[in-house]
Amino acid sequence: MPDVAQAFVPGHVTGFFTTHTDSDPTRAGSQGGGIALSTGVTVTVHPAEEVEVVLDGKAVEIEAVERVLRTLQTPVVVRAVTDLPLASGFGVSGAMALGTALACNAAFSRQLSRNELVTVAHGAEVQAGTGLGDVVAQARGGVTMRLEPGGPHHNLLDAVPARGRVEYITLGNLSTADVLDEDTDVLDEAGERALSTVVEEPTMESFMRASRRFSRESGLLTEGVREVITDVNEAGGQAAMAMLGETVFALDTGLSDAGYDPEAARVHHAGATLQAPPEV
Amino acid sequence: MPDVAQAFVPGHVTGFFTTHTDSDPTRAGSQGGGIALSTGVTVTVHPAEEVEVVLDGKAVEIEAVERVLRTLQTPVVVRAVTDLPLASGFGVSGAMALGTALACNAAFSRQLSRNELVTVAHGAEVQAGTGLGDVVAQARGGVTMRLEPGGPHHNLLDAVPARGRVEYITLGNLSTADVLDEDTDVLDEAGERALSTVVEEPTMESFMRASRRFSRESGLLTEGVREVITDVNEAGGQAAMAMLGETVFALDTGLSDAGYDPEAARVHHAGATLQAPPEV
Repeated sequence: MPDVAQAFVPGHVTGFFTTHTDSDPTRAGSQGGGIALSTGVTVTVHPAEEVEVVLDGKAVEIEAVERVLRTLQTPVVVRAVTDLPLASGFGVSGAMALGTALACNAAFSRQLSRNELVTVAHGAEVQAGTGLGDVVAQARGGVTMRLEPGGPHHNLLDAVPARGRVEYITLGNLSTADVLDEDTDVLDEAGERALSTVVEEPTMESFMRASRRFSRESGLLTEGVREVITDVNEAGGQAAMAMLGETVFALDTGLSDAGYDPEAARVHHAGATLQAPPEV
Repeated sequence: MPDVAQAFVPGHVTGFFTTHTDSDPTRAGSQGGGIALSTGVTVTVHPAEEVEVVLDGKAVEIEAVERVLRTLQTPVVVRAVTDLPLASGFGVSGAMALGTALACNAAFSRQLSRNELVTVAHGAEVQAGTGLGDVVAQARGGVTMRLEPGGPHHNLLDAVPARGRVEYITLGNLSTADVLDEDTDVLDEAGERALSTVVEEPTMESFMRASRRFSRESGLLTEGVREVITDVNEAGGQAAMAMLGETVFALDTGLSDAGYDPEAARVHHAGATLQAPPEV
């Protein structure tokens, strides 16, 4: 008989990325760089006759989650809770897809490996059009560099060996799907330049510099975000725009030092993990 | 000017493995399976004129650590502390090599990526003859399956999606170098069978079953370890031998339930990480 199961998936802010389409969703995805955050999404699945997905107490429709449930053939109620802002570049939909895959595998003893579960969640997110690289980065943790696109059977990951505090504030929403629907040539070129910079010098300073440049060159930088980044720089800090959201993230106390009232998290070194299920 | 820096590396118990020699130490290594443990090794490096390596307050010579220091050209005093038993199959030498690489990179701003640092530590451990697969597993965390041997540029890792408590007791020491010097054909065949079993059914139950069978088929099972494993099985638990040590590890409360007085840790989901340096 299936059990209740629970997973935690770190949030993820992307600093820069490229887009790679492929008819095989396990090969499609993105190169890029991002930071896994200790603030994330806790996903609990309860076996049920009717599928239901609830985020912070509200029924939601998240295509990536529904695709995961169909692939694993696991009818459940998914209950997710998070302190992350929604639709603001923190990878909440990817976290829900990945957390659902991990928890359903445990609850129903589906006996899939970790790579297989990440592949299911990555493919679901790509097919839903809501993300290209969050899932594989959230599965790994740390400050990942996605050197090759796709799920874990095809991609290639490295990381900036770093730790520390990350602050963030969100000014509004951006739709990932809208941006990905547009012509991405300029964005892809900017993303490749940014990745090359960080591969050559894998430090947090170079990561933040490359991310800022990417946001300008890709045309994604908004006026509101630009102003906040400038304030942080003038206060001696390092900030960049989270892709894709009207969100600024900064290292250490960058936003606080510039007079903002940010949320704070830390670099989260573990990828998504099963947790002890809640007491029933 | 270089700083003090600190890293934490999880312990690692190997359940089964194969050996792969190669003139290139970044390609040499092992396939196999193991569990990263929340009990590990904390490594602090202090820039110094003379290299010195200290483990739990005693000066030690650890070839893998010395090789890392030579490769990175970082003259330091390495101070490591651990609650893990030494020379008993917990990957302490691999942890010290990897922790030294991560910490020296930070202290001296060497600007190597995470994969590069893991490669340095893996190659040093292979060349020292003290381990074949601990370093890459300790860099990843979790319950890794090493599907292909070598450092991160050549290997292929998957994992059993699992969590929970691990208990262990150590009955004595075994030398990794002595075993690896012998003819390994029988061991390699047993290791491949064990890996196939866990790839087919990536669960903790199958991991423990495959590990027990490997210890018998490889001829590495000692009489003392066999007796403890039998006791745990008779008490309804799951235990196996840690490679290479006179050590038994068990899931959950397996050893306690069988009347032993074990140490306890948890599956550690993060790989090796930088930590906040100690207050000086």
